This record gives sequence, C-alpha cells and structure tokens, in this order.
Amino acid sequence: MFATLKFAALLLAVVVCWATQDYDYNDAEIDEEPTLGDSPYGSLWPLPQKVKISTVVFKLSGASFHIFDAKESSSGASCRLLQNAYRRYDEYIFTSSRKQGQNKSKKAMASDMSELQVWITSADSECDSYPSVTSDESYKLSVDSPVAVLKAPKVWGALRGLETFSQLVYKDEYGAKSINRTDIHDFPRFAHRGLLLDTSRHFLPIKVILANLETMAWNKFNVFHWHIVDDPSFPYLSRTFPQLSQHGAYHPYTHVYTPSDVKMIIEFARLRGIRVVPEFDTPGHTQSWGKGQKDLLTPCYSGASPSGSFGPVNPMLNTTYDFMSMFFKEVNTVFPDAYVHLGGDEVDFSCWKSNPDIQKFMEQQGFGMDYSKLESFYIQRLLDIVTTTNKGYMIWQEVFDNGIKLKSDTVVHVWMGNKVEEELQKVTEAGFTTILSAPWYLDYISYGQDWQKFYRAEPLSFKGTDAQKKLVIGGEACLWGEYVDATNLTPRLWPRASAVGERLWSDRDVRDLNDAYSRLAKHRCRMVQRGIPAEPLFTGYCAHEYKGV
Amino acid sequence: MFATLKFAALLLAVVVCWATQDYDYNDAEIDEEPTLGDSPYGSLWPLPQKVKISTVVFKLSGASFHIFDAKESSSGASCRLLQNAYRRYDEYIFTSSRKQGQNKSKKAMASDMSELQVWITSADSECDSYPSVTSDESYKLSVDSPVAVLKAPKVWGALRGLETFSQLVYKDEYGAKSINRTDIHDFPRFAHRGLLLDTSRHFLPIKVILANLETMAWNKFNVFHWHIVDDPSFPYLSRTFPQLSQHGAYHPYTHVYTPSDVKMIIEFARLRGIRVVPEFDTPGHTQSWGKGQKDLLTPCYSGASPSGSFGPVNPMLNTTYDFMSMFFKEVNTVFPDAYVHLGGDEVDFSCWKSNPDIQKFMEQQGFGMDYSKLESFYIQRLLDIVTTTNKGYMIWQEVFDNGIKLKSDTVVHVWMGNKVEEELQKVTEAGFTTILSAPWYLDYISYGQDWQKFYRAEPLSFKGTDAQKKLVIGGEACLWGEYVDATNLTPRLWPRASAVGERLWSDRDVRDLNDAYSRLAKHRCRMVQRGIPAEPLFTGYCAHEYKGV
Repeated sequence: MFATLKFAALLLAVVVCWATQDYDYNDAEIDEEPTLGDSPYGSLWPLPQKVKISTVVFKLSGASFHIFDAKESSSGASCRLLQNAYRRYDEYIFTSSRKQGQNKSKKAMASDMSELQVWITSADSECDSYPSVTSDESYKLSVDSPVAVLKAPKVWGALRGLETFSQLVYKDEYGAKSINRTDIHDFPRFAHRGLLLDTSRHFLPIKVILANLETMAWNKFNVFHWHIVDDPSFPYLSRTFPQLSQHGAYHPYTHVYTPSDVKMIIEFARLRGIRVVPEFDTPGHTQSWGKGQKDLLTPCYSGASPSGSFGPVNPMLNTTYDFMSMFFKEVNTVFPDAYVHLGGDEVDFSCWKSNPDIQKFMEQQGFGMDYSKLESFYIQRLLDIVTTTNKGYMIWQEVFDNGIKLKSDTVVHVWMGNKVEEELQKVTEAGFTTILSAPWYLDYISYGQDWQKFYRAEPLSFKGTDAQKKLVIGGEACLWGEYVDATNLTPRLWPRASAVGERLWSDRDVRDLNDAYSRLAKHRCRMVQRGIPAEPLFTGYCAHEYKGV
Repeated sequence: MFATLKFAALLLAVVVCWATQDYDYNDAEIDEEPTLGDSPYGSLWPLPQKVKISTVVFKLSGASFHIFDAKESSSGASCRLLQNAYRRYDEYIFTSSRKQGQNKSKKAMASDMSELQVWITSADSECDSYPSVTSDESYKLSVDSPVAVLKAPKVWGALRGLETFSQLVYKDEYGAKSINRTDIHDFPRFAHRGLLLDTSRHFLPIKVILANLETMAWNKFNVFHWHIVDDPSFPYLSRTFPQLSQHGAYHPYTHVYTPSDVKMIIEFARLRGIRVVPEFDTPGHTQSWGKGQKDLLTPCYSGASPSGSFGPVNPMLNTTYDFMSMFFKEVNTVFPDAYVHLGGDEVDFSCWKSNPDIQKFMEQQGFGMDYSKLESFYIQRLLDIVTTTNKGYMIWQEVFDNGIKLKSDTVVHVWMGNKVEEELQKVTEAGFTTILSAPWYLDYISYGQDWQKFYRAEPLSFKGTDAQKKLVIGGEACLWGEYVDATNLTPRLWPRASAVGERLWSDRDVRDLNDAYSRLAKHRCRMVQRGIPAEPLFTGYCAHEYKGV
C-alpha cells in the first residue's frame, strides 16, 4: 500500500508545476464564465502575498503528523487560542481519515511531513488579547520534510498561517494526504476585512452566527460588524435596559441575544482572530428601541395632534442623552473592541418636521428649517458621550458628509453607490480613516456569477496621495437582512463574500479571473466539505457534496 | 388547564372572522412589500376553490385525535398510500406535542375534534395506481365536531385534502391545537402543476430530491419534471447502456442515480400524488452522452479534419436510431408515467455545418442548406421510435415551431420569454395540449420579492376560444441547475415556487397580493417548521426558526 502512495508522489512531482508570484496575471475582463483551468496555486484562497510551490511532494500520515508549538516559541501549551486552533486544523486536514486506535507513535517515513511547528517569534504572543486594527497578522510558512515551520510574530499570524497550511494539503489520486514543498510569506493588504450581518430584520440563531465566524476565518476576514438592532427588532438583551428587547425583540426570549450569548460570540470570534464591532445605529433605524423605552423616539404629528407613530430618536430631550450615556456605558463593558459603530445613516426628517415641539426647538437653536442641523446636534452630543467611554467609533458616511466634528481616529464607512471615488477622496483628504462597502452589498443578488463583480472592485482606484490611500484601512461585505435568515444566509454569503476576502487580503495585482475561478471553485468545495453550504459558482461538482437539505 | 383552553377557544371564536370565497379580491399591482394583514383564510396555501370558515373553534387533543378510514370508504387499511399519509399528517399536525405514553383511549371533550374520517367515494380508489394527467384530485372537507370528514373520489383528492386539513390546524394563544368549523370544496384549476429540477448541471443527492418532492406535495404540485441528463453530466445509470453514466456522470458511483434510486424516487412521489416525467433531451444538450457512447454525437470539423469536439446527436447514422430505440425502450420500463419529455430545444447547427459527411447527407436528402430540416428529420424518427413504446411525449416549443408532425396527445412546453401569448395561441390553435413555463424560470433571481411576479402571471390571458384555453393543461416552475446544488437549491425554490403552485391550483380570481402575502408568510413558516429551509419573503420572523445552518 505505502509503495503505491510513494509512486503516486513521484507521479505528482512531475505534474505539479513550479509557480511563483510572478505567474502571469491576466487582467482580462470576463463576463462569461471563466475556465476551470488548474491554478498553479491549487486551492489557496485568499492568495498569499508571496508563494513558491515546488514540485516535491510529501505525505502526511494521519498516524504520525501533528501540529506542535516550536520549542523556541513564546507561546506554549497554556495558549488556549493556539491549542484550540491546532485541534481545529487537525480535524480539517484529516477529516475522517484519522482512524481511532491508530498507533500515534508510528515512525514517519522519509518522505513524510511529520509535523508542523508553530513558532510565535515576538515576546508577547497576544494569546490572551483581543485582536485590533493594528494586530500583526503576518506569518511565514516553510513546508519542508520532515518538518514544516510556521513563524509569526503574534498568534494572529499563526491563525492565518494554519488556515493556509490546511489549504496546501490535498489528496493525491490514491487518496493520500499530500503537500508540496512550499515557501510562503504572507500578510494582509488591508487591516480591516469585515463582514456585516444584520440580526434585526431577521433574527439569526447563535449557531448560524458561529458557523459564519468560522467560515470568515477560512477566508481570512477579521471583523464581524454586528448590525445587531434596527427598526424591525431589538434582539440585544441589555442588562441596563432589559425592556428594550422585552418589547422590541421579535420574541422576548427565543429571539434575543443574552449577555452570555454575546460573550460566547465574542470569544468564539477572538479565538479566530476576529474582532466583533457592534453597531447601535441612531438616531434613525430605531423603531424597535421605542417599544421598550418611553419618550426615546419623536412622536410624529398628523396636523395638530400626535399620529400615534414615531420617528427618529428625540433629539431635544435631556432624557435621551441620559439614556444614551447609560446605554453606551454598558456597550463599552460588554464589547471589548476599541470601536463601536454608531450608524447615523438615512435619517428621515418628515416626523421631526411634523412635530410642533421640535419646530419650537429648531427655532430656539437657530437651526431655521435645516433639519440636518438638528441631526448634527444629536450626533455631536452622542459622539461626545461615546468618547467619554474611551471607545473609538465608526460611522456611516452621512455623518461625515454632514460636517459633524469627528475624533481623529474615526472610521468613516463609505456605503453609497454613487460617487464612491469622490467620497473616498474627500474623506481621506479630511484625514480620516475609512472603510469601503459600496461595491460589496451582498444582499443584492442577480443571475450568474456576481462574485466577479465583487472581485474586480478596487478600493484604491480613487485619485489621492499615498498618504490618503493609507487611510483606506479596508472594507466590509454587507449582507443586510431583509431577505435572509437561517434558511438561506449561509449559501448566499459564501463563496460570494470570499471574493471580497481575497480583494482585501491579497496583493492588488491578484486579479486574474480564470486563476481566481479555479482556486475559488476548489475553496468552495472545501467549505462544503467542512460542513458549510457554500453555493456553487457554476456547473460542476464537489467530490463531497453538501450533506444537508 | 383544560378550562383555560376552552376559554381560549371562546375568545378565539370572537376574533376569527367568517369568510367565504366572496371575500373582496383586490387586483391592485403592488411593487412594494404587501402588508402582513391577517388573511381571513389563515395559512391556507394554495387557496382552495371554495372555503367557508366559521368562527366556531374546536380543539384537537394529541391524546385522542386520529385520522381514520371512514367505514363507507372504498379504501381501507390495506391502502399503504393512505396509511402512510395519515402518519405523515399526524406528525405534521402534532409535531412534538403528542407525548409518548399518553393515554390514546382518553375520551374526547364535547368541544373536541376527535377524528378525521377519510372517505374514498368511488369504487376504485386508485390506491395502487400511478397518478396521471386525468387523475381526479378533487375533495370535500367538512370540519365539524366531533368528526371531520374528508370525501374524495380517489386517493389523490384525499392527499390534497389531508394537506388542507393540516393547514387549517393552528395553535391558539395557549398553544392548544385548534381548528375552526370549516367547509371546503376543492379541485385544481390545472391538471398539470409541475416543477423542473435539473440533475445534470449539478448532481442532486437523493435526499434533496425527496425533500423537495415532499415540499411539492405541501404546495399541491403533482408533476416532477426530472431533467435528468444534459451536456455537463449523465447521472442516469442505464441498465442497457451502463457506460453512459460510467463515463458521462461527474463520478461513476457517487454521482449517479441507480435503478433502485430511481424506483425509490418514483414511489416516494406516487405516495404523494406526484408524477415523475423524465426528460431525455436530444439531439442537442447531449455532450455527456457522447462520453460513453461512441459515434452517437456528430464529430465537428475544423477545416478538413475533425476538431476533436462533438456536436448534437448524429442524425445520419442508423446506429443512432438503433441506440435510441433500445434506450427509450428501457426508459419506458423504468418510468411508469404515460409521458416522457423528449426535449428538442436549442439545437446548435454549427457543428453539423462543419461536418462534410453531414453536408453530403443534407444533399442526398434534398435539405439544401436548411439544417432545421435535418433537425426535424432526426426528431421525426425519434418520435416514431418513442411512439412504438406506447409513451406519450412532451417536447419543448421549438419542435412544434419547426413544424414537426406530432401525435395528437403531444404536450408542447412553452418556455421562451418572447411572444408567449402568441405561442400559446398558435399551439392551441393547432389543437395541441400545452404547458407554460416561460414566466416561471426560478433560476433567474433578483433583489426583492420576485414571488409576486411569478404569482401575477396568468396562463390564460392569451386570445383564444374556450376550446383553445382548455388545451392549456397547466405549467411548470423550472429551476435550472447552473447555479444551484444541494447547498442552496431548497431555499431558492421555496417559497418562490409556492407562488406558481397557487396560480396553478386556485381560482383565476385569486390574485390579491396582500392576502397572498399574509398566507404565504405563514405557509413558509410552516414549511420551515416541517424542516425545509424555505427562505423569508421579507423582514419578520417565524416562531420556530430553521434549525440547520
């Protein structure tokens, strides 16, 4: 049996080609389906910054191969994050092929890859920290027999490198786990690679959120932008204001996120190098807040009397700001990330305009008829409140567009589809960091391979100085929740979001659609084999089809 | 406890309104999301032809309620189809609420609905038959205490009525299973209500096919159009020509349908009153056939020599017709339905044109340069072959358009998006029965509530005599497989196909989008609760969200 495997290795050594980053990228625009030619990069996704894959093949024996801490590593067995990751990747690599009761002390053969050593090189591995926008995610991976070495300054890079290592392993034609001699030096192009999920328009069970965090890690995403509440429902169970979810959630206990749920999600994400940035969008998008919090929203008027419906947060009452102070104080303690997203988008003025008390207040403040001044008045006070909690904030682009005074570390979130480059120019000219979502609204679906559209988008194509370009710290794929819930979210998200994942991680020049198609088709089959219903790119098949319905 | 439930029943008796088919249907065109007002028809989908729902409410006790054969029924305990259905609907109605070890002989209370009697009224229940286009699916359902009676001439109507009965049962605010006094007289508007699934572009595991057959029954579909093979793969394992799938399937044993798989699917469908009409599309769409069957396809030429690629079935060889004879003889024995779909769409002439032997043959036959004559030559001979197997056939509209001589019982399948009404006019003028798919290509997706578009389509809006309209025997929703497989097929199909289901079953005047939205939102939550990931129509929630990922 083993002789056969070695023979296969030799065979493969002939057919697997030598490839470097110099591989001829072809920038052709392809609207038809790209061809499924084999990529020299196998199934790597997103493509690492520097890759050299040799034709020499080693085998991984399920009986002897293990992932270990390198002796020199600053991180050891006490680092739960890494130990957890080793177990995860061991399972991914060997799936069901590591049989129980196998003799683990079996000697490795000469051509075997016997272990992967993980070596954290800086004194502080950050094993027990939360990831941040400045986290070092770089790593170097050297795959050679009998030992592969993964070096990373911090655990974050080790996590990314483990995923890459697992993507290098393949089955040869006899089913033997194989890996080519490979050298990789990798780091992300952008520091902020996010995914927005919306748990207000539809409640997403914890299980769905965790599954998608796991899938994010496979695609090297590092920010979960949790659009947790909005008009339709308020599933966040606040310790300070439990009535918010009691009255504002779709259901007060089956459709809420309890403090322990939130904690679990944050820790699950941390273990995968993913930040959790919650969004509490105000003053618009707050209908659900009003159900549990009296006087928070502006009463709308129909003629001279209240109509019974409500508009945005009421900006003229001191109680509003007292509430926000207490609420964001809680948010600050619950969510460890240095940033909170404060929304600020799409404020509808019609209700404010209808309300005589607001009209009076506008006069008093000298705002005239300019309701955007009222909006700014509210947001300015909110930002001041949040600043006292020592959190940084992210805001949707309108807040910047309206000329609100922002802290210098504010992240401006560009989402509007028109004049995207102009907006990026303006925001960075003003010296603010920014992230881009405009080309990546994944809730918009259409017939065919729309991943290509997401893939082609280039965040730095706007005119600006190098300093301005550096202020673009990344982007986010957004899957708004109007039409997705637990039934269809996951296949709609993957592998479409994977296209964004590569755009944000890999080199700017990685744009060859044929090469991407080949790698992504394999990457999506890998996601399917790992249990995630990632949808097909086009006609074809996976060796292991999805097992669910 | 029970006193409380009775009180709830009284409460409900006040709020549930009396409704008849005379309910004011509003034909307004609504492009925005319809309102989720409560429909007087609860969660009924598709809406029965005649419904009277009273305000009087009965309870169903999991301990005492049962579905029985009526004493007078022509069908008894030996009818596996019905016994199987009783078990299924008992499970749907009581889900997890029927506790083990409950005393089943417990006496029913006065206000209880103690049983549903199923009464097959005609001498031949057709219990052991296969459904056909002339099957009687009508039923009458009278829900009154202590006994509900479901009368149907044949088992097919009983199956439809059981589904309707299960849709009438709801939980009151205390969670008690309840049903209103109701009278229903129901029958389908169209005899052919089909769904096309494509197992060639992606292989669909048996489990996925069965789950969707089950869901079809909930939506009163009665034809599974199995587009089983096509260019990309040939998963049908033929006993006569096993090499077809051996070489033409994506994988010779993991991605094929064995004879026993096919048998199981046909029987599973039969038990739900669903016909299985296989499609073996020729002469185009046959690339995968050529891999296992030498000389079946036309060799394409590049200049004076064969290019190595192949075109449609080779129409000039006698061996082609020998093969087709044997192949369709097998199809005739494997698939019991009276019809087989022979395809005939989208034949590309370029390969035929390139081949010098074909050119010679064209001359000999006096076809000039008109390759559609060659296509007709092939199809005419194929139809003659299939006719000898005593099967009727369905064909895509091109075959009719090209003036092929068709048997009088041919079903012409209208699929092209342009001039739909004109085509229906022509086909029916020529005296052929026809089914419509043009408005129902469910593989085309777009942002928002496209179910409304499917719902609005009206098959009989073309100009024609009553006799012509009668020739439109129904329609089919088509989910072509380029972009769907086991990962995303089911949520993409449901509840979008449900819209087609109601259009084909219910009265022509059932078109109120608000009423439909209200019923369909509940119907989709019911599908979710029964375990199928039917996607949401819009923002909102189900009491029981989907449990998978």
